[in-house]
Amino acid sequence: MVVNELEALIQLMARLPGLGPRSARRAVLHLMGKRESLMLPLAASLDRVAQAIRDCSICGNLDSVEPCSICSDERREPSLLCVVEEVGDLWALERSGAFRGRYHVLGGTLSALDGRGPDDLRIASLVTRAKEPAVTEVILALGATVDGQTTAHYIAERLAGVEVAVSRLAHGVPVGGELDYLDDGTLTAALKARRPA
Amino acid sequence: MVVNELEALIQLMARLPGLGPRSARRAVLHLMGKRESLMLPLAASLDRVAQAIRDCSICGNLDSVEPCSICSDERREPSLLCVVEEVGDLWALERSGAFRGRYHVLGGTLSALDGRGPDDLRIASLVTRAKEPAVTEVILALGATVDGQTTAHYIAERLAGVEVAVSRLAHGVPVGGELDYLDDGTLTAALKARRPA
Repeated sequence: MVVNELEALIQLMARLPGLGPRSARRAVLHLMGKRESLMLPLAASLDRVAQAIRDCSICGNLDSVEPCSICSDERREPSLLCVVEEVGDLWALERSGAFRGRYHVLGGTLSALDGRGPDDLRIASLVTRAKEPAVTEVILALGATVDGQTTAHYIAERLAGVEVAVSRLAHGVPVGGELDYLDDGTLTAALKARRPA
Repeated sequence: MVVNELEALIQLMARLPGLGPRSARRAVLHLMGKRESLMLPLAASLDRVAQAIRDCSICGNLDSVEPCSICSDERREPSLLCVVEEVGDLWALERSGAFRGRYHVLGGTLSALDGRGPDDLRIASLVTRAKEPAVTEVILALGATVDGQTTAHYIAERLAGVEVAVSRLAHGVPVGGELDYLDDGTLTAALKARRPA
């Protein structure tokens, strides 16, 4: 008979994206065979990260320091601001190594369906940052989805009165694709070929 | 930039079956958005289960009590012993509700490739249990794989001198399965074991 405590763990695991009830069971059984080498370290790491890693108050990136290591890195180009939907997109751009400016993580896209409006995203703080004299260009690196493009369009309008160039990633981003899943070459090409919005 | 602590968590998550580096990143980002409702409870549950759940010394099942709740359940049929490879198989049989005897979890299969011999599995204790006067039948519920069938064959030989009936699960068409999608081996087995309608 499945024990309650084990069943509770399986149900928690099954809430992770990419795992269903069946694969969560497999994962838990795998963990039970590696208590010392994997299960306890994973528990400790989850706890540490949940406690120590916070959203950067400036850009929304995840980091253990405040402001985050990108915002406080003096070597990053201060004139370029790259707007992304999620931290995973920021990570994808960092992995490509193609961008040396700073970021602004919206925390999602506008979505009528999910009831997410401008106030649910970091848009007001983006407009404030775009007004800083050092910033000369805002790059909208949003997904080529309907919601992503709607959000890009909305942000471009909000920045219309601000003295800053607004650009978008070049088409090269597959339509319907998410940034997180793109290869480095495509991301680099899309960044290089960015055009005025 | 990906933080070291976060990267360490992603690498731990990526060691779970069914998750790769990419899906581990997605899972961690998902967790970061649900720190209180999912991430901390998951960390606590992993820790609790790793500490509290142990292998039953009799059958190898996972439980917080010793012996496990199945071994100590007086209502289970004491004459039937069902041999399975892993705890996951025990759970599958329990979900079916079709078996009311007790179990014996081998902890894997014999495998020349992986260097797993009889001493690496709970085979000696199985033979001891099979000799108990109450036990009249040992059901070998092992996978229909080469290693599973090799193991079943080996156990049947080890039990040859013991006064106990040894049986195996029937091969056949899975309930709800379509003939068109079945492999030749299953169809052949189902034909050979055909019964009067």
